[in-house]
Order: sequence, then C-alpha cells, then structure tokens
Amino acid sequence: MFDVLKRLLVGRPLRSERLGDTLLPKWLALPVFCSDPISSVAYATEQILLTLALGGAGYLSLSTPVAGAVGLVLIVVVASYRQTCYAYPSGGGAFVVSKENLGETAALTAAAALLVDYVMTVAVSVVSGVVAITSAFRSLAPHAVGISVGFVVLIALVNLRGVKESGKSFALPTYAFIALTFAMFAVAIIRGASGDLPQAETANLPIEQTTHVGGVFTLMLAARAFASGCTALTGVEAISNGVPAFRKPKPHNAAVTLAMMGVLAVLMFAGITVLAVHLNAHALPDGNPSVISQVAGSVFGHGTVVFYLFQAATAGILVLAANTAFNGFPGLASILAKDRYLPRQFYNRGDRLVFSNGILILALFAILLIIGFDANIDKLIQLYIIGVFTSFTLSQLGMVVHWKRELATVTDPARRRKIRGSQAINTFGAGLTAAVLVVVFATKIVHGAWLAVAAMVLLFFLMRSISRYYKKVEAEVDAVDWDPTLPPKVHALVLISRLHKPALRALAFAKATRPDQMEAVTVAADEAETRALRKQWEERGLQTPLLVISSPYRDVVRPIVEHVTRLRTKDPRGVVSVFVPEYVVRHWWQNLLHNQSAFRLKYRLLFTKGVVVINVPYHIGGAGEGWWSTDPNAKPKAQATEVKA
Amino acid sequence: MFDVLKRLLVGRPLRSERLGDTLLPKWLALPVFCSDPISSVAYATEQILLTLALGGAGYLSLSTPVAGAVGLVLIVVVASYRQTCYAYPSGGGAFVVSKENLGETAALTAAAALLVDYVMTVAVSVVSGVVAITSAFRSLAPHAVGISVGFVVLIALVNLRGVKESGKSFALPTYAFIALTFAMFAVAIIRGASGDLPQAETANLPIEQTTHVGGVFTLMLAARAFASGCTALTGVEAISNGVPAFRKPKPHNAAVTLAMMGVLAVLMFAGITVLAVHLNAHALPDGNPSVISQVAGSVFGHGTVVFYLFQAATAGILVLAANTAFNGFPGLASILAKDRYLPRQFYNRGDRLVFSNGILILALFAILLIIGFDANIDKLIQLYIIGVFTSFTLSQLGMVVHWKRELATVTDPARRRKIRGSQAINTFGAGLTAAVLVVVFATKIVHGAWLAVAAMVLLFFLMRSISRYYKKVEAEVDAVDWDPTLPPKVHALVLISRLHKPALRALAFAKATRPDQMEAVTVAADEAETRALRKQWEERGLQTPLLVISSPYRDVVRPIVEHVTRLRTKDPRGVVSVFVPEYVVRHWWQNLLHNQSAFRLKYRLLFTKGVVVINVPYHIGGAGEGWWSTDPNAKPKAQATEVKA
Repeated sequence: MFDVLKRLLVGRPLRSERLGDTLLPKWLALPVFCSDPISSVAYATEQILLTLALGGAGYLSLSTPVAGAVGLVLIVVVASYRQTCYAYPSGGGAFVVSKENLGETAALTAAAALLVDYVMTVAVSVVSGVVAITSAFRSLAPHAVGISVGFVVLIALVNLRGVKESGKSFALPTYAFIALTFAMFAVAIIRGASGDLPQAETANLPIEQTTHVGGVFTLMLAARAFASGCTALTGVEAISNGVPAFRKPKPHNAAVTLAMMGVLAVLMFAGITVLAVHLNAHALPDGNPSVISQVAGSVFGHGTVVFYLFQAATAGILVLAANTAFNGFPGLASILAKDRYLPRQFYNRGDRLVFSNGILILALFAILLIIGFDANIDKLIQLYIIGVFTSFTLSQLGMVVHWKRELATVTDPARRRKIRGSQAINTFGAGLTAAVLVVVFATKIVHGAWLAVAAMVLLFFLMRSISRYYKKVEAEVDAVDWDPTLPPKVHALVLISRLHKPALRALAFAKATRPDQMEAVTVAADEAETRALRKQWEERGLQTPLLVISSPYRDVVRPIVEHVTRLRTKDPRGVVSVFVPEYVVRHWWQNLLHNQSAFRLKYRLLFTKGVVVINVPYHIGGAGEGWWSTDPNAKPKAQATEVKA
Repeated sequence: MFDVLKRLLVGRPLRSERLGDTLLPKWLALPVFCSDPISSVAYATEQILLTLALGGAGYLSLSTPVAGAVGLVLIVVVASYRQTCYAYPSGGGAFVVSKENLGETAALTAAAALLVDYVMTVAVSVVSGVVAITSAFRSLAPHAVGISVGFVVLIALVNLRGVKESGKSFALPTYAFIALTFAMFAVAIIRGASGDLPQAETANLPIEQTTHVGGVFTLMLAARAFASGCTALTGVEAISNGVPAFRKPKPHNAAVTLAMMGVLAVLMFAGITVLAVHLNAHALPDGNPSVISQVAGSVFGHGTVVFYLFQAATAGILVLAANTAFNGFPGLASILAKDRYLPRQFYNRGDRLVFSNGILILALFAILLIIGFDANIDKLIQLYIIGVFTSFTLSQLGMVVHWKRELATVTDPARRRKIRGSQAINTFGAGLTAAVLVVVFATKIVHGAWLAVAAMVLLFFLMRSISRYYKKVEAEVDAVDWDPTLPPKVHALVLISRLHKPALRALAFAKATRPDQMEAVTVAADEAETRALRKQWEERGLQTPLLVISSPYRDVVRPIVEHVTRLRTKDPRGVVSVFVPEYVVRHWWQNLLHNQSAFRLKYRLLFTKGVVVINVPYHIGGAGEGWWSTDPNAKPKAQATEVKA
C-alpha cells in the first residue's frame, strides 16, 4: 500500500548509473538555482518601503538610495561568488570553502547558517507567493496557511522525483516572470511618456508621522531598511554549491549563469523600486495587496488579463524559489553527512537519485515555520538574512585564504596576476558582507532574528556532538592491529516453552552449531505446563539437559536474562548463544494471537553483553515448503545425525 | 519511567504463591460480586416510570404490578443460579455451563453476550453513579462525561492492584447504601404515619397525555416497562462465575451470599418503587434529578446531611457496581483464552495476580461507550439486558441438561430427589428467562439494542475464528511422530559493510559455529567504500571469500534477500544462517545516528524461508568489559584458532 502510493507520487526507482543524466544546461540551471534571488525582487522593495514608512512619509524618499546600496552589495557578492565557481568546481558552498581554509568551527558556523536559511527561504518564498495569489484574489487570504503548506508539499514531491524533471517544470514561471517584469517596465515608460500612468491604489493612504526626527534616527531607519532590502541577496550562493550539476565545462557555465542572474536581479530590483516610488505605492503591514501587485495593477490595469498573468508568474517564481533551497539543503546535508556532522541517512540517495531525507526534513521544518508564524510574511522575514550574510562572510574570508595558498605555489606571472585580482574581489566582498552582517544583526536581532540565531547555535553544537560521537565510535571499532580469536567457549541455551516443531527445530539447529555446552531452558510460569513439558522431554529421551527456571512473579524475560548473566559471571570470556524458536505469521495481526515475550526477551538480551541471539523461525501456514526437515516427503538423510544425542 | 509510574499506581509485583491469599470471606464477597444487582435498584424503578410515562399519567399505576413481575423474575433467577454454584464449584458461568452441556455454539453465544454486558455494566453503572452526584450538585451536570471516565480509570486501577484490596475498598459504600435505604424506609413509615411526608419535587409536573389507548397499547407499554425494569437483574450471575474466589466451602458460601443478595435486592427494589409511586415522583428524560434522589429528598429533606450521605452512598455503590464487571470480565476472558477462543494474553496474570489485560480492555471499551453516548443513561440503558438474558437462558438450559446427565449416574433416591428439585428450578428459570428475553428483544431492538446484538455477533465470529486459527497452528506444530534431523547443510553468510571490530567479531563467531560453507557478503552501494573494503580484505589475508553484490538501485536489503533466495533455490533443504554484526548503543536516540538497514534486513529475512538470523552485537561504549576478545588485556588463548583460515 505505502509502496504503491510512493511509486505514484515519486516514480519508479532509477539506477545509480543514471546519475550522469541529471546534469543541467545553463537555461535550465538558471530557474533551478536562481529563482530565489530573482524572485526576491518581488518582496525586497516592499520590505524597504515598509521599514521606512515607520518613520513617516518623509522618509520614503530614502528608498532609492537604500535600494541602490542593496544593488551594489548584490553586484559585489555575485562577483565574489564567481571566483568560487572557478576555484571549487566540485561544489564550493560556504561550508566546503570555510572548512578547507578556515577550519572546523568556521565551517560548522557556515553550515548551520546555511541550513537555517534554506528553511527560511522555503517558508518566506512560499508565503510571499501565496501573497501574490491573495493580492489578485483577496477572498483567499484567510486560507493562506493551508495554501502555503500545500505548495511546500508539492515542491517536495517534485523534487523527490529528481532534479532534471524539476528543472523543466520550473523553467516556465521563472522566464515568464522575467519577461513580464521587463514588459511592465516597457509599458510603464510608454504610458508614463504619454502621461496616462495612474498612481498606485494606496497612493493616498495616510502615513502616520512619528515624533522621532534627527540624524541618528534617520541613519538607524535607513540601516534597518537596508537590512530588510538585503533579502534580495538570498540564494546567491546556490550556484556555487551546485557547480557539479552543470554541464561541462562546469565552472565556466556556473559562472556565466551567476552573472546572468546578477544582471537580471539588479535590473529588475532597480526597475521595480523606481516604479514603486514613482507611483507612490505604500507597503501595508499585512502585505496584502503587495507593492509589486499595486505597481502591476497601475501599469497593466487592474483586472486585465496581463495583470493576472503577471500575478500568476510572480506567485509561480516565488513558490518555486523555494526550489533553490530544495536543491541546496539536501546537497549540503549530504556533504555534512559524508563528513560525519549529520546522520548518515542524509548521505544516501533515494529511489530517484535525489537526497530524499534532506528533502523531507526541509519540507517538514518549513511547514512548521509557516504554521507557527501563521503565514505572516512580515514576521517570517525578520528571521531571514542573518544566516545568509554569516555564510557569505565566512565563504569570502575562506576564498581570501584560498587564493593566498594558491599564490604560494603558482609562479607564472599572468596566472599570479589573475589570482591577485580574484583575491582582491573576495577581500572586498568579505569586508562588505561582514559590514552588512553587523548592520543586519544590530537592526534585526530584537525583531525575531534571535530565533534564527538560536537555531544556528543549536545546530552548530548538534553537528559538533554528532561528529564527536562518530569519531569516538570510529576509534572504538577500528580494527587495525586487532585480530579477533574464535570465542573461547560457546554456551548454547535453547528456549523451550513446549515441545512442538519450532522447539525441536531450534534444538536441532543449536546442535548443528556445535557449541561447547548446550542446555534447554524453560521458565516455569504455569505449573501444569511445566510438568507436561518435563514428561514429554523424558518420553522423547532428549539428551540435552532441560533446565527449569522458576519465575515467582510470572515474568518470562527476567529469569532468562538473570540466568544468562549468571553464566557470564562464571565465565566472563565465554559467549552465550541464545536460540529462540519463533513463530512467523503471514499477517501482522496474527501476531496479536501469539505471545510477544520472545520479542521483549530479544530486546533485553541485545543489551546483555556476551550474548548472541539466534532466531530459529517457524513459518506458520507454509513451513513445509522445502524448509529443511518439515518437508513432509523428505526422509532424514543418512549422514544427518539424530537430535537425540 | 513507565516502570516507576506503574509501581506507584499498581503496586509491587506479587509472587504467584500469594494467589491463595486473595480468597474472599462472605462479607467481602457480597460487595465485590453483588454491588451490581443491589445498586441497580437505584435506576430500575426510574426506568419503569420513565417508560410508563410515555403513555401518560394514567399508566403510572401500572408501575407496581410491573415492578412486582420484575421482583418475581429476580427471585427465580437467584434460585436457579444457586443450583449452579453447587454444580460448578470451580466457577460455573454461563460459558462453562453452556460449553459442557450445550456445545460450542451455545457457549460462544453466552460468552459473547456476557462480554458485551460486562462492558455495558461498567458504562451504565458509572454513568448512573455520576447522575447521583449531579442530582445532589446540579452544577456538575455538564462535566458528566469527564467525571464518568475518571471513575472508570479509578476502578480499573484499584482492580489492577488486586482483588482483595478492591474488596475492602468497596465494602463501605455497599453496606452504607443498604443501611441508608432501609433507614429511608423506616423514616418514611414514621413520617408517613404522622402525616408529615411531603410529595416528591416533581409531583406536580404535567405529563403529556398520548392519544394511544386500548388493550394492545397498554400491554406493549407494560412489556416495555417490564423489560426496562429487568435492569435490576444484571450481574446476578457474577457469583456463580466467581465461586473459586470464595473461602471454603466455596459452593455453600457462594450460594448463601447469592441468597442474601436476592433478599436484599427484592426488598430494596420493592420499597423504592412503592415509595416513588406513593410520593408521586416523576422520571425525567435526562434523568436529573433521579427518582431515587427525589424520594430521598422527600423523606430525609433536601439539603440535610443524611440526604447528602444517601446520595454519596448511591453514587458510591453505583460507581463500584462496575467493579462486578471488573471481576467478571477478566475472569471470563481468561477462561476463554485458556480454551483458545481469545488471545493468550488474557490468560496471563499480571504483576498483582489479576488478569491485567482483561481489566485494561474492559476499561477501554467502557470509556469509548461513555464518550460515544455522551454519558446519557437513557440511551445507554437501551443496549443493556439483552446480553444478560441471553446468557441467563443458555445457562439455565445448560443446567437442565447437566442435571439430566447427573440423574443418569446417580441411584441414591434422596440424592435423585434433590437433583430433580434442582432440575425443576432450572427448567422453570430457563422458561421464564427465555420469555423475558423475547420481551426484551421485541421491545428494545429498535431503540438501540441492535448495536449490542451486532457486537455480540461480531464477538461470536471473532472468537470462533481465533479458535480455528489456534487449532490450525496447533496441528501444524504438533511434533508427535516427528523427529527433526540436523540441518543437512548450513551455509553461513556474514554481512560486512566495513572491516571494523563488529565485522571481524561476526566473522569469528560465524566460524565458531562451523558451517558447511561460509562466505562474507557486502553490497556495493558506494563504489569507493567497496574498493576500500576489498583492499583491506586482501591486506588482512582473510581466507573467507568476500562476495560483492551489486545494487543498481542502492538498496541494501533486496540484493541480500535475493542472494539468499538463490542459495536456497540451489539447495532447498539447506539452511542459510545470516550473521549480522550489529551496533548496540546506550541511548535510543543514538540509533538515529546509525543506519537502520540492519533492522529492515532482519525483518525481511524473517519472512524468507530457510533462513536463521544471528545478531552478533557490538556494544558501543563499553564493549570491552569481559566480552570475549575485545578485552584490552586479554591475550588470544593458545587453543583458540585464529580467524584467518
């Protein structure tokens, strides 16, 4: 049943050799890796306006310089990450770069920051996408949480089917959004020139004037607006993480795609911000209607087909921007798992050659965030960015060290010049992103970012503990210079409750393992049954001694564990092998009709040192089929010894 | 944690020998086994009045004759069951009597009827008890469901502690209720004689007059009222079931207790009915205030201490009447389990020498009923009685057959005369209860009794299926004339993923079992790891062949199962023993950090015929403590063979 459902949703398993098939051409890589930074233009402008409006209408004029600053940072970060693509063709996420150049602490900090931010990306993007829908169809607003969760589930399913298929399904909305945005700019210029461009629908809303004035307040508000606008930069590092998914030459194609993305994002962000200011669009606290939808409504006309197409494309790219994280998170988790910072389960590829466990965990946490924050974009966004800039800074710092090492080995002057150039870019990038990080931290920590920071700290220590645990186990099980001997002595115990076929078979099998000592053990829980068993034992003339252990409290498990412990105390280096005859039934519910003490016993014995548990199964309803001597037509072979010995 | 909680609630486990200690003297047996029939006088009168009121005020005069008929049936049934106590000193419930004398179908019908009715007894008694409380404190009415469930849980806990303790805790309310009821009669006579006994508080409530009139309607209404009044008879059979719990001479003490109960119940029922009619108390559809509380209010005076004491005693005996079922149900379930009609788990006595599983199941179903019927006594009571009279009838019929058999063997005239007397009583009882059953069925089936009938039919077929299943298994595992040979050939497979200590130890242990053939098996899920393993294998010079199975779909479990199946196809009579090196961790959550494929593999192999799974555990963080050759100070013994062979 579960299998059928899984096949329907996820598709048939793929063979490992097909992994090469899933490489991406540039035109598919752009939507897969860049929908996050491109789509964030849909809310970055709004966040700037919303923050500035806190100061009053007069502060809205700051939006253009603030947006300009954000655009500059974006350009610098893109330029920095292009260097990484070339330096780390096997995938140079902040974790890998930090680990190689800055050490474990920096690397784990970067990894924790990235993991938290991937979850945030999914939550913020999907919720913003749903805002685009509710801006067009305002009656859907009360169902925002449900719709958002639905989208997360959908994206997770698409990703579980495999990376190439998801690339194709995601190309259309991304390119539609880009095309329609530039079309909007063109229409705006034409209508503006002819003087028939109406103001935004919120243009005449009053804005409350605060009593705060003065230079410090202005600076703080601008800084906070800038920090909010920096949401435009999230996801830029996805490409440098995903270099191996590109077609050859991988680093070159990745760098070209990154540049394309940078140019598109800066142009669109600038255009939308200029239009929003020009049309006097106000950001509303509940984000509905969104600033970008107001702009589109003015330019294209509310209720026109193009307006609805634009909203659909916005919603499409925003919801799919989450896809960037669905590529990034599982990949990073797999690298972390390979390095033993996360459980091994994140390293395994699922049926469709994707890292299924990473996809599932990411979806789970994103859904929890969406529900926990009631799909409120303004609250969610406060948790964002801090992780992004932490990893940016560490990654750029790592690159600086990387180039320094390169310089130490390279002598060719042309090459050295090129490296120095790269190093300069990364140094500038590191400085700038560090500065932005300070601004983001200072302006956002009390508004909710503390939760993100707490999650990062938790993850950091969790990963360090996991790593230490694995190392300890590794050292413990390492078998270099260790030669095991055969067990000095094996004492076989066969558990018997009645003398039926399963019991006799267990006795025979135990005998076949030729233990040094062997005894049958029964627990006297019911006096009549025990007497019957003793009698049968004698009648059959079984020569294995039958030990009857009394159980005054009617518990079957403890007396056996105690007996085993006694044996082990007598001979601490010996091994006790416990043979458990076990009914195997055809349907799970038939287990309800059999005593489950065997299961409890096996569990307890697992934790008793020096014990090897051996299940001798007996299949109810079909045991005869060729399974050794219960075959009704089989005669005991001449060479097979009788059990009575 | 769970253990500590269990000890606190249930107490320390008792030794099996203490079973004899839990026998009951008569004065304790009465509250334990008879609180149900005695307490039902608290609602039987009300049910008669409620039904008659459907016809109109004029029909209320029928209540005295109807109650008289109920009283007569009660006397006959008590007389009948006294015969059973003597005939079946080891416990003669309807099931045992029917099985011995009427065959399996009748016995299972009786058992199903009883099991359903025990559940009903708990639900009805507890809910009525809560009505007694809400009649005194009417603001508690909205919390009836919660209070009822709480009482069920409480009674279950008391019973889990053991039968003797529960007897003591239940004696007080039972005797208090009896004493206060007779005190009420005395006060009523005195106050009535002096003419200062006020009418019931509902005396002046108008009763709607129906348009139905005439002989047939009167007869039908009287029949229905009679059927409702028969709730007074529930639980009479509990003593005959519980004869072994009495002190010696068991049958005599049981019969005496039964007679005592009969006398008390008839007197109290008659007295309350007469008083209710005399004081003109009306039954209300929601049962609040109850008729008995109105009577007590009139006689003792509302708000007096005695009134509250009486309500407390009523609530006490009603809630504790459920205890009768908590003695009956688990005992019957245990007998059924011993006869293999129910899962074996019901046969085992728990820590405190009671049948814990029966207690828990009973409590569960009663709670479901209370919640499902919203603690509405009028709806619940419709499901009642039908099971009681089914088992009454079958039990009496069985007794008739029993005495007939006795007559065939006994020759002593005095003894024959006595047997004939018993037989006559039982024949009369059987006829009367069968007639009542027809009346109850006809008048209640559409009012909800169909649900109880459906449950009985379901239980009947369930028990028959369980019995057939056990018989089939029994025949299959029976080892008479069956001598197992040693397995003709044992092929050992040792599962290896890496060459660490757990793997080497598994190899050594496999070698120690001296299989006919032995190979190590690894699944090539990760190419690099497989290559490393091969290299280590050669460097160590291990002479066990290492088989590498490819796994194109990265699944570890299926390739191994397929390999095992191949081996078995080649040699269907051989046994494949699969050695699984297994990490055993100290804390459950550490399992999250290890791959759980070993667990899945073991599960799959359990269902593969001809396979014996052998767990060779390795305890992380403490494996060295004397456990064979990982002892750091242990030198390989001279006689122990090296694994390299």
